[in-house]
Amino acid sequence: QARLYLNTYALNLSLISVGYEKARQAVLSAEEQLMTGGRISLSSDEAKVDDLFMQYKLGELAQGFRNAEQNAAAMHFFKAKPLIDRSAVFRFLQQMPKGAVLHLHNSAAVSSKWVVQNMSYMPGMLRCTDAQGRSRLTFRRAAKQHGCSSQYVQVAEERRNSIDPALYDENLERLFNLYTPVPELEYPTITAVWNRFQGMFDTLTEAIYYLPAFRAYHWQLLEELFNDNVMYAELRVGLHELYDASGRTFPKEQAVRELLQLNEKFVRLHPNFLGIKLIHAVWRGADEQKMRQNVAEFKLLQSIFPDFLVGFDLVGQEDKGKPLYEQISALKELPSNTRLFLHAGETNWYSASTDINLLDALLLNATRIGHGFALVKHPILMNAVKTRQIAVELNPISNQVLHLVWDMRNHPGAQYMALDIPVVICNDDPGFWNAKGLSYDFYYAIMSLAPNNAGLRVLKSLAFNSVRYSALTEMEKQKAYKLLEYSWARFIEKVLQGKVF
Amino acid sequence: QARLYLNTYALNLSLISVGYEKARQAVLSAEEQLMTGGRISLSSDEAKVDDLFMQYKLGELAQGFRNAEQNAAAMHFFKAKPLIDRSAVFRFLQQMPKGAVLHLHNSAAVSSKWVVQNMSYMPGMLRCTDAQGRSRLTFRRAAKQHGCSSQYVQVAEERRNSIDPALYDENLERLFNLYTPVPELEYPTITAVWNRFQGMFDTLTEAIYYLPAFRAYHWQLLEELFNDNVMYAELRVGLHELYDASGRTFPKEQAVRELLQLNEKFVRLHPNFLGIKLIHAVWRGADEQKMRQNVAEFKLLQSIFPDFLVGFDLVGQEDKGKPLYEQISALKELPSNTRLFLHAGETNWYSASTDINLLDALLLNATRIGHGFALVKHPILMNAVKTRQIAVELNPISNQVLHLVWDMRNHPGAQYMALDIPVVICNDDPGFWNAKGLSYDFYYAIMSLAPNNAGLRVLKSLAFNSVRYSALTEMEKQKAYKLLEYSWARFIEKVLQGKVF
Repeated sequence: QARLYLNTYALNLSLISVGYEKARQAVLSAEEQLMTGGRISLSSDEAKVDDLFMQYKLGELAQGFRNAEQNAAAMHFFKAKPLIDRSAVFRFLQQMPKGAVLHLHNSAAVSSKWVVQNMSYMPGMLRCTDAQGRSRLTFRRAAKQHGCSSQYVQVAEERRNSIDPALYDENLERLFNLYTPVPELEYPTITAVWNRFQGMFDTLTEAIYYLPAFRAYHWQLLEELFNDNVMYAELRVGLHELYDASGRTFPKEQAVRELLQLNEKFVRLHPNFLGIKLIHAVWRGADEQKMRQNVAEFKLLQSIFPDFLVGFDLVGQEDKGKPLYEQISALKELPSNTRLFLHAGETNWYSASTDINLLDALLLNATRIGHGFALVKHPILMNAVKTRQIAVELNPISNQVLHLVWDMRNHPGAQYMALDIPVVICNDDPGFWNAKGLSYDFYYAIMSLAPNNAGLRVLKSLAFNSVRYSALTEMEKQKAYKLLEYSWARFIEKVLQGKVF
Repeated sequence: QARLYLNTYALNLSLISVGYEKARQAVLSAEEQLMTGGRISLSSDEAKVDDLFMQYKLGELAQGFRNAEQNAAAMHFFKAKPLIDRSAVFRFLQQMPKGAVLHLHNSAAVSSKWVVQNMSYMPGMLRCTDAQGRSRLTFRRAAKQHGCSSQYVQVAEERRNSIDPALYDENLERLFNLYTPVPELEYPTITAVWNRFQGMFDTLTEAIYYLPAFRAYHWQLLEELFNDNVMYAELRVGLHELYDASGRTFPKEQAVRELLQLNEKFVRLHPNFLGIKLIHAVWRGADEQKMRQNVAEFKLLQSIFPDFLVGFDLVGQEDKGKPLYEQISALKELPSNTRLFLHAGETNWYSASTDINLLDALLLNATRIGHGFALVKHPILMNAVKTRQIAVELNPISNQVLHLVWDMRNHPGAQYMALDIPVVICNDDPGFWNAKGLSYDFYYAIMSLAPNNAGLRVLKSLAFNSVRYSALTEMEKQKAYKLLEYSWARFIEKVLQGKVF
């Protein structure tokens, strides 16, 4: 029985027969039980941790209610971040095992600070400017390969010659970080922020596919997830050829192989980390011929790495890109067992091609939905998602920074959770907006999307959901649950020992 | 069968048996039929008007899609207004019979321009400053009566002595108009805008209750509704005693009687206007004793004006005010046949006292819900509202100006309409934010809340809903429907004669 709504039993009770208080309590409990995590029972230790957590959570919310200028739950991430960094709730979330992150783009996954402090100090990094006036970073010498229209400059030399190298690095970081203290002024429209955002991929991607950078960057990616108590990731990768200092290039297959090897090495070093798998992500604006090529390429790579490259997706600004509907004939060439993790409904438009992507994603039998921001306006599709247990990959901070929602308490994830529609909390492109790991998104999930009185039940559900709705095999899932249960138990102990708060 | 969601029949059709296209079309049609107005059939003339309307609507949306800086549907009203004023869709909506407005506060109902140009030119208007530094306008001489802490100044004299009387009037208007070209800067938080908003009632209310002003003001109120093709209003009034130039005062009963007489006179002059009825609105923060007094007063007035004063409500910033739950014992003193039109869920908080007001409103058997912005997060209550046919009074611009939502396409009204939950479009306090009549709110309803492809079916439903969910008696409703049908038919003719576009 997968009805989204309970019936109105409680509200139809006559006040005379059960009394106002009883009817009131019945509805409140029914809503609590209906929501994500509502029917989880907590152990007595967990209940103690929940009590503790709720003290901090309610304290911070009360503070935010009294002083709207300090109400992190309602503020833009760029303004809220200093508050979040001081928050006890946030420290709790950082240490809490969060399971998996299932929506994360590799080229925007690593904190921009690391990119500046490490990658940009690698010998050989060059900067040039393309026809649109955007900086492009590369380690490759041949201009035509990456669309430069200006001369190259050595980043190391520019930095040396600058008045203030620290300031140089700050400005360099701004090339791939959207942070501004006044997002409402700097990004007045969705187009303004998407233009800069899309440009940041152009700035950075080529540099990342320089073999030594590629290895260091993805190692750091794993480190940042691991350090944030994430144990597994399904990484959307836009695969490109690799190149090295001698000018040699390596096919995309080599990029996958490198990631596989890095992953194996990282997992050996960190037995509590389960590793990553890849989702092959291609540009949604491609023409039919190019899309058929992408599909063929995916088939080939999938046959080589059947357990590592687990699915397919289309990426790029959904509003401006081609609708899924136009790509269907190419997508039908995918093997019938291909798992699709499709971006759909990342929009504020209603009944436009972007939100109708949700319908096509479901008809294409998608395994999960990326964003699904607009799903909330499509009751029939929302019901299908719940019935078929198709998880929605929520990216709260991404949706805010990229101009879909201002006050995060209006994020539709709140409603998905209220209805126990399967959701997983994801971080999308944390490196591009001053975040790191998954905890900042979890902060908004529990402080802004969940009801005020929701605590450990919701958090635990979200963590376990991330395994449940992953593309892990059944056997891998068993291992993942075991590991998550183990880390969860250790975390609960740690809280009770006073090591978290 | 009052299920909110259709089942997933269409989506479960196997693609082999019916084909992708058919399944796709089935879902799209099912969603269209499910929504507000989805099952209305249009006459052939109406269908022609719909086609015409859709050309303009889709044209303006396409323009907004191409140029986000000019996308009125997504912009704050203060920024969008010049665009809306030039919009053909808006001109259509202005001339369209909109039926009734069921949520409108008398002290903020009249355009601020009129108040400046007319009321402030009445002889005897004084200005003073209260302890909070707010200007207060009055025609009464005794300072203690209206909380002034400064000396009085004659508005006429101030104006005469000012360097530029036009500039003086502009500044005077700012005292009761929230307009600013940069709302995102001037009102960074809900508290900032509510403080100014609440203060504006303090500035203006006393001046309105000066008998000559009271008459002129409420006459203008009727004019503005009538001129905007609204035919009936249920006005929330905070009743105060009246006073005149000689210092005499008149009890609240007299204020009701004045409104009744104005109304009768106005209706005689405009046979196509049905008139107004009143909802007695009291401050939600009152203590129990005061609330009991309010209830007693309402009972008395209701016995005098049984057909004119038709219901009861509590007003004031809901987040900061007392929850309904605390007022229940006083509210239970109301006669059991009292119709309650309760503000509830005007908030972004989730599971706080403000949104739990929704539950109490339903348990108190409210006739309609004011705002219900947070209802969307309460699936069980949402179901109850639909099952019991309790209309939600949507106030799109109010919710935006008062900081609940930025991009109107995120307004929960979109979801209520998707689910055919009963809604009526209202304007709340248009005089305080540079609006006039109901057409601006209708503009957002059709351009931002409704799906792109929704046209006359939705508009017609919204107009007819406003009669259906009004507090008119059955006989009055019959008359209202007739009148609305008549004006609707004349409007359709007018469009076809090319007099609208």
